[in-house]
Amino acid sequence: MREIRIGFGQINPVVGDLEHNFAQVLSQLKQAHGKVDLAVFGELALCGYPLGDLSYRSDIIEKTEAKLAQLVQASKDFPGLTVVIGHVSKAKHHDPSQVSFAIAHNSATVFSEGVVVGSYHKKRLPNYDVFDDWRNFVPGSEELIFQLHGKKVAVAICEDIWDQDATQAKALVKQQVELLIVPNGSPYTRSKQSERRAAARKFQQGFALAYCNLSGGQDDLVFDGDSFLLDAEGNEIFRAPSGQGLFVETQPLDEIRDDDPERLFQVLVTGLRDYCTKNGQGKIVLGLSGGIDSALSCAIASEAIGAENVLGVALPSRYSSDHSITDAKSLAKNLGCDYREIEIEGPHASVEKLLTLSNLAKENLQARLRAVILMGISNTEGRLLLSTGNKSEIAVGYSTIYGDAAGGFAPIKDVLKTDVWWLAKWFNQAKGKEVIPQSSITKAPSAELRPGQKDQDSLPDYQILDDILRLLIEKFATVDEVVSIGFDRQLVAEIDEMVRRAEWKRSQGAIGTKTTVVSFGSGRRVPVTTRFGKL
Amino acid sequence: MREIRIGFGQINPVVGDLEHNFAQVLSQLKQAHGKVDLAVFGELALCGYPLGDLSYRSDIIEKTEAKLAQLVQASKDFPGLTVVIGHVSKAKHHDPSQVSFAIAHNSATVFSEGVVVGSYHKKRLPNYDVFDDWRNFVPGSEELIFQLHGKKVAVAICEDIWDQDATQAKALVKQQVELLIVPNGSPYTRSKQSERRAAARKFQQGFALAYCNLSGGQDDLVFDGDSFLLDAEGNEIFRAPSGQGLFVETQPLDEIRDDDPERLFQVLVTGLRDYCTKNGQGKIVLGLSGGIDSALSCAIASEAIGAENVLGVALPSRYSSDHSITDAKSLAKNLGCDYREIEIEGPHASVEKLLTLSNLAKENLQARLRAVILMGISNTEGRLLLSTGNKSEIAVGYSTIYGDAAGGFAPIKDVLKTDVWWLAKWFNQAKGKEVIPQSSITKAPSAELRPGQKDQDSLPDYQILDDILRLLIEKFATVDEVVSIGFDRQLVAEIDEMVRRAEWKRSQGAIGTKTTVVSFGSGRRVPVTTRFGKL
Repeated sequence: MREIRIGFGQINPVVGDLEHNFAQVLSQLKQAHGKVDLAVFGELALCGYPLGDLSYRSDIIEKTEAKLAQLVQASKDFPGLTVVIGHVSKAKHHDPSQVSFAIAHNSATVFSEGVVVGSYHKKRLPNYDVFDDWRNFVPGSEELIFQLHGKKVAVAICEDIWDQDATQAKALVKQQVELLIVPNGSPYTRSKQSERRAAARKFQQGFALAYCNLSGGQDDLVFDGDSFLLDAEGNEIFRAPSGQGLFVETQPLDEIRDDDPERLFQVLVTGLRDYCTKNGQGKIVLGLSGGIDSALSCAIASEAIGAENVLGVALPSRYSSDHSITDAKSLAKNLGCDYREIEIEGPHASVEKLLTLSNLAKENLQARLRAVILMGISNTEGRLLLSTGNKSEIAVGYSTIYGDAAGGFAPIKDVLKTDVWWLAKWFNQAKGKEVIPQSSITKAPSAELRPGQKDQDSLPDYQILDDILRLLIEKFATVDEVVSIGFDRQLVAEIDEMVRRAEWKRSQGAIGTKTTVVSFGSGRRVPVTTRFGKL
Repeated sequence: MREIRIGFGQINPVVGDLEHNFAQVLSQLKQAHGKVDLAVFGELALCGYPLGDLSYRSDIIEKTEAKLAQLVQASKDFPGLTVVIGHVSKAKHHDPSQVSFAIAHNSATVFSEGVVVGSYHKKRLPNYDVFDDWRNFVPGSEELIFQLHGKKVAVAICEDIWDQDATQAKALVKQQVELLIVPNGSPYTRSKQSERRAAARKFQQGFALAYCNLSGGQDDLVFDGDSFLLDAEGNEIFRAPSGQGLFVETQPLDEIRDDDPERLFQVLVTGLRDYCTKNGQGKIVLGLSGGIDSALSCAIASEAIGAENVLGVALPSRYSSDHSITDAKSLAKNLGCDYREIEIEGPHASVEKLLTLSNLAKENLQARLRAVILMGISNTEGRLLLSTGNKSEIAVGYSTIYGDAAGGFAPIKDVLKTDVWWLAKWFNQAKGKEVIPQSSITKAPSAELRPGQKDQDSLPDYQILDDILRLLIEKFATVDEVVSIGFDRQLVAEIDEMVRRAEWKRSQGAIGTKTTVVSFGSGRRVPVTTRFGKL
């Protein structure tokens, strides 16, 4: 396929910001012009993805179509360049058996030198995990095949090529298609790089395949670029990095980095950075407990928006140990962020005067007063508050709602505790020095809400807990299935029940970056009210 | 169709509590035996509906199937009785073009005297509003037609009959079907009674139709019973009330009560009551501001679980007016609930000593300290905290996250402010006395977070606001569409933007009873991060 030179336009769109997205596309077309024959952009690149129920509003559809028309006009300035870009479009026909409110297609349009070659509408609409495409879009039914430099080229969109039977691919091959262009909105998960290539190769039926992804964060998703080109034999002849930019075929970059701590860390940084940037948040505040979760979150925040924009606040209570303050302070100093100490004893004692509290309520009180103070700083200084809970504690409900769970974004909500340690160790290694204090990594985890409290007083060892949680959450495994792998039945049943009982708290949880196949949030929808699994 | 006597088993299932649901069904079969020929139960009655992603767990499917087998055995004790009941079942075939993780059917099984007649699997899987059936179930493809008392009877499930083309109905008529049995999981909305009958009549092709709904609350949904029987000409010859029970055909009960304040109030009561009952919550706490929202919420709570189990707490700040306390106290006295007063000045002053706060932060601080105190009571006394915000203020973000937005359940989150007044007036009228103090109804709404504050300082008149919100939220209307009805463009655009900017708060909001066609929560899924509509 060396006869057609391809450029991959990995833009980082903002949902609904058509001017912003248009400007990125135009800038990349200017770069592409003269260098490539074909510039490919991602799924819904022009309007942003996912749109959610904004797809029900006719104005976003009409404005996107108008912006597309403007882009087609602009392509007159780039003779010899063919463009494929994803966008929402008004559906003309709606199959009543679909049983949705959808009025729009998830489309990709091909155009060149001011002329539209044709549009393709996504056929396979994913409706699992975080994806609501069947809810939000009308499926297409036609192929789009066009001629370019004497070759037959076709278009498919994202989920279309995850069809194990490759039905569509077989039909395309019958029509002598030699190259398939695939715009994608494919979010990062830890082994996604391999999975994308496996799916693409399984779908290939003797044609070359150009896979173009979006880049950047959108709420809980990070689109990690990773566009690639497979020749007709399935050899990868080009691979793009994860970031924003126009990437033109070169040799493949290094190896696939499934489950690589650096790539995971960068995804967490991108998720937080883009949440801030796209929502006009330039500054961050978070509580620093001296523990590993807030330390890692602070490191992510510092990389995301610059340490000078991050404020860490230590909020010692009467139960805080000396090392908590020391570790919090060292962390802030090592990262270079702003640091404050605010003792909560005043309000703590003052609320206690008003109320008789149970032991549990006393513990939660401290966490909630910290949230009151942090939100006061957030509101006053215009800083986004981070909630620093990890996936293990969010899973079993080991957190205080309106306390440490409070925040606009939760950067490590989809990172299990054992992976928090793994990332923290990697971070120090990558920096070549002890940025996150070693004692934050090695000390026994504790919420320090009563004297001598340790997480492992009420939870199993985190290695065991995380192994069980991976099965229950990511595989929707039953207790029997987890036990059959070798875990204690009583323990598994208890954890299953803890997960069930914490559902109401999670239903009010902050959004945060998805990193696994099933994260808490829109990717996992279970009732709050259920007795299934009750012991 | 007088030859087949039908009983409608409106059970109130708990999701996943198979023993509990089985016991209700068995008890109703005992009542039905000898009285009717056919006992019909609702959609997924045996396992509860909606299951959400619990439908991905093979154990809930297997346990439901085992419980169904037990029920079939039990039917030996009821000679002459045929039963139709909804349940989840393992799907044998999965169409790969569905692109979901579903492994189960949404089924209904017909059995009699220990023998299974057959099973039907729902074909039309709704995937709009709160419904995720396409995500969670595999569609069926076969009809189930059986003989009963010499008549041909068929089964369809819920959304199947909302097909405007009545394709399935036409096929059934060709096979001489005379009666269609329809188990439903149909949640209340304000004009649902008429809509159900309109859909059923449109679907009828000369056969009688027995529509059986569930009853009771499940998270944000209330299934309001309202089972009915239409003869072959579409005449309604029986209608069940909204509650739990076995209802055998009698004459139709009074008129359809679309948009009736009593029916709406009872739905709000049921939603809260069942949330409490099903989650083991016997007691409630809520803050009483003296305003109309907390007053109505307190009335709902008192009806739901008994006033003696409800604690109202007045939490005056330095800005609270005298009438706030008087009104709160009168309300509690009139309803007969427990009442406390806790001044927040102590913690208020104490936090102010620690922080320099902006004006907005100062307002939020008071709301958050109230939440800290209320959650302390909640944790200590095992009381469910109610969040008492109405739909209008939740829509435009006129609430404090982790403050008045805090709570496990929000009973009036889907009731607009003007409807809160309407319900409060109805309530007093229905009680024949001033239970909700008249001054709570008539005074100008105020959060009382600064001296002299009134809602209308920063919001338009609630009549106008609510009219605009209905269009934007319930119709997904565009600004242009709202303006074309006669509203001011600048005002509509500002409200549209306020709705957009409050999305992050709503993403952490408490669940509460759905009463309209689009409520905030799982029925409306829009991105937090979007600039669409930004002014």
